[in-house]
Amino acid sequence: TGSNEQIPGCCSIDFTVAVVLPAGGSGERTGLSTPKQFCTFLSRPLISYTIQAFERVAWIENIVIVVAKDSLDLMVNIVQQFSHKKVKVVPGGSTRHRSIFNGLQAFQGRGEGSALKKPKVVIIHDAVRPFVEEDFLLKIAIAAKEQGASGAIRPLVSTVIATTSEGYLDHSLERAKYRASEMPQGFLYDIIYQAYVQCSEADFEFGTECLHLVLQYCGTNARLVEGPPTLWKVTYKRDLFAAESIIKETLSQTACVVTGVCEESTRLACALQKTLRAQDMHVDVISTSLRSSGTFISKDWNFIHVTVKSTCLTDLGELVKTFKESDHAVLYPVVLILVHLDVLEQSSTSERMAALGGIRDLATEAKRINILLYGILLNHIKDAEQWEEAVEHLSQITTALIKDRNPALTGQLLWV
Amino acid sequence: TGSNEQIPGCCSIDFTVAVVLPAGGSGERTGLSTPKQFCTFLSRPLISYTIQAFERVAWIENIVIVVAKDSLDLMVNIVQQFSHKKVKVVPGGSTRHRSIFNGLQAFQGRGEGSALKKPKVVIIHDAVRPFVEEDFLLKIAIAAKEQGASGAIRPLVSTVIATTSEGYLDHSLERAKYRASEMPQGFLYDIIYQAYVQCSEADFEFGTECLHLVLQYCGTNARLVEGPPTLWKVTYKRDLFAAESIIKETLSQTACVVTGVCEESTRLACALQKTLRAQDMHVDVISTSLRSSGTFISKDWNFIHVTVKSTCLTDLGELVKTFKESDHAVLYPVVLILVHLDVLEQSSTSERMAALGGIRDLATEAKRINILLYGILLNHIKDAEQWEEAVEHLSQITTALIKDRNPALTGQLLWV
Ligand SMILES: [Mg+2]
Ligand SMILES: [Mg+2]
Repeated sequence: TGSNEQIPGCCSIDFTVAVVLPAGGSGERTGLSTPKQFCTFLSRPLISYTIQAFERVAWIENIVIVVAKDSLDLMVNIVQQFSHKKVKVVPGGSTRHRSIFNGLQAFQGRGEGSALKKPKVVIIHDAVRPFVEEDFLLKIAIAAKEQGASGAIRPLVSTVIATTSEGYLDHSLERAKYRASEMPQGFLYDIIYQAYVQCSEADFEFGTECLHLVLQYCGTNARLVEGPPTLWKVTYKRDLFAAESIIKETLSQTACVVTGVCEESTRLACALQKTLRAQDMHVDVISTSLRSSGTFISKDWNFIHVTVKSTCLTDLGELVKTFKESDHAVLYPVVLILVHLDVLEQSSTSERMAALGGIRDLATEAKRINILLYGILLNHIKDAEQWEEAVEHLSQITTALIKDRNPALTGQLLWV
Repeated sequence: TGSNEQIPGCCSIDFTVAVVLPAGGSGERTGLSTPKQFCTFLSRPLISYTIQAFERVAWIENIVIVVAKDSLDLMVNIVQQFSHKKVKVVPGGSTRHRSIFNGLQAFQGRGEGSALKKPKVVIIHDAVRPFVEEDFLLKIAIAAKEQGASGAIRPLVSTVIATTSEGYLDHSLERAKYRASEMPQGFLYDIIYQAYVQCSEADFEFGTECLHLVLQYCGTNARLVEGPPTLWKVTYKRDLFAAESIIKETLSQTACVVTGVCEESTRLACALQKTLRAQDMHVDVISTSLRSSGTFISKDWNFIHVTVKSTCLTDLGELVKTFKESDHAVLYPVVLILVHLDVLEQSSTSERMAALGGIRDLATEAKRINILLYGILLNHIKDAEQWEEAVEHLSQITTALIKDRNPALTGQLLWV
């Protein structure tokens, strides 16, 4: 397809690929009452991040999500709320294998509603591994097409030991000969489907490895592909913390500074760009009227609006309106920071506060559409060294707001 | 000892225990240039958190830290900066086993300086597993005393598979028979020392499991003890994120509200206590003069000072001074929030701002001793419902400041 050709090094795929995502786990290991695939960070459940990882891959045609019957409504609501495409939600069975088989049947016209088109290759993944990347999915799909089955492996993190029945060390395994079996795995659809048709009730009840079923029932030895560390599985509460931090870090790598055309604001914007870059943030400066914001708002998750003299809340209000129409902030909270440079030294703090007081109401309105709005006041300083310090402080506050993305601090006016 | 008897359910230990902590790893898996044991969060390197986990255990007599020769100065500085006790730093060898053996020799009078007293049991741990708890260390120490050797195990997270030399699935292991070998491990000192004296150059060069050495050279089958998930090892960058979040969460579980004796401030303090408790924070209210602060500052990591009418920066300054004398903030940053309730409705924003302007200077001074000082302004509202909303907003801002512990936002005056 056209979109694949634009990705450097991406082979075009000439066969059809679909995904089955079993999401029925109980999440007992996180120590939380919510199953971990439904745990929320940055206002979005984990399962939605995993869906997004597949949805953005052009050559994946369908994503079948298998959930416990109790969670069907919840899952359908998540798909709607975050505008997921290519997704079909089906009810699961009492074990992991029964759930996967239910998912595969969505391509057989046996499920409720209309059947999906049967794919050449089906990828099976975990709902709680949200960081899988397109290039690895490609490797798994191609290996499955060629070999009939494929699976991700990783080196063992710990030494594996055999224990005696009394709880003593028996022997330890030679680490080099063994690997951890991870997800995703890929299969020719007909092979994995036949394996499930032929397997026993005991396999459905107690089995865990799809790779085993296709070996046992179809004689297919899976091709094993070493995967990157990003395949890790969200298992414990600490993993939810890690996932949130990774996503916050990813969202904080770039920012867009929007400035008017006047000299003072352009100069401040460029100084801010320089200090933010020194903190490894990629920053673009756009000199424009906010009224043409439709052309740039979909390109970033962090916007810094530099104003001088006028506090420009009308323009900022229009920007919020543009976001509302664009759906851009549906997937991640957008940070919007108003930086107001006061060049009129005679204006008092209270005058500036009053002029900018409206920021609180606008922040309340913006938060409803997942935009986190903050304000920062900055005095113009003539002394070059002090000015540099002020810009440095400004960039530290800016970075802090962008990295923390804390909804409780929106509508605040910070001062440099 | 006396301190052990105060811990409910804690057996007293009638033998001596020391710890060897190899900290020479290169940290290549984190993708960071700093070895992971020296990576810093909340202004403190990971290794210091791990040292702290042993230092606070009354029945552990000595902690020997083995570091690469290049890192000796760095490590000695860390021990000084964070006032660690019971610690001796020794240079490591070219492999993990050589480093551990060097650590054990610190009890033999062969190391530089004076030898430490030889312990009955030695616990070996990883520098990058900071969350090990006293009750588990006790299990390991007692099992080592009884059996000669003991080691932590955990269930396998992934299926372990054997691969063919061509990269195909050979077979998978029956998960129930195997365990992951983790740290800590415990040994009778004489047994592990003899194992190292007798083992071959090949063991020193290529071996990884101490449990194996004592089995092979001393015929000791280690007792395996199932450990809690908190034994996890900081391996990847995501684990550093997780460790930081866990520590921040732990620090955010309690707070101390300090208030004067006047009715308005006591009422606000109690209302704030109630809303913070609803967010699962344990909150104590202390009605006192800040001048007697020496008696309570060591009990918490978060202090909220409620004032009415007077902005009380003198008292706050004295509190900061008391912290400076107490060393309490050496291990973790302390959050100090000034909540100023304005009951004089006629006073303008600018008057309040001016009165509280000094908070920035005090915040700069406080930050030097690891105290993060923030201010929050609150107007008195007569309408009961609006007042409740304001208190709710106040508690959200308070929680955000405590949880994020962001040094870039200190000295700010937020408003409810
Ligand atoms: Mg598996
Ligand atoms: Mg080991």
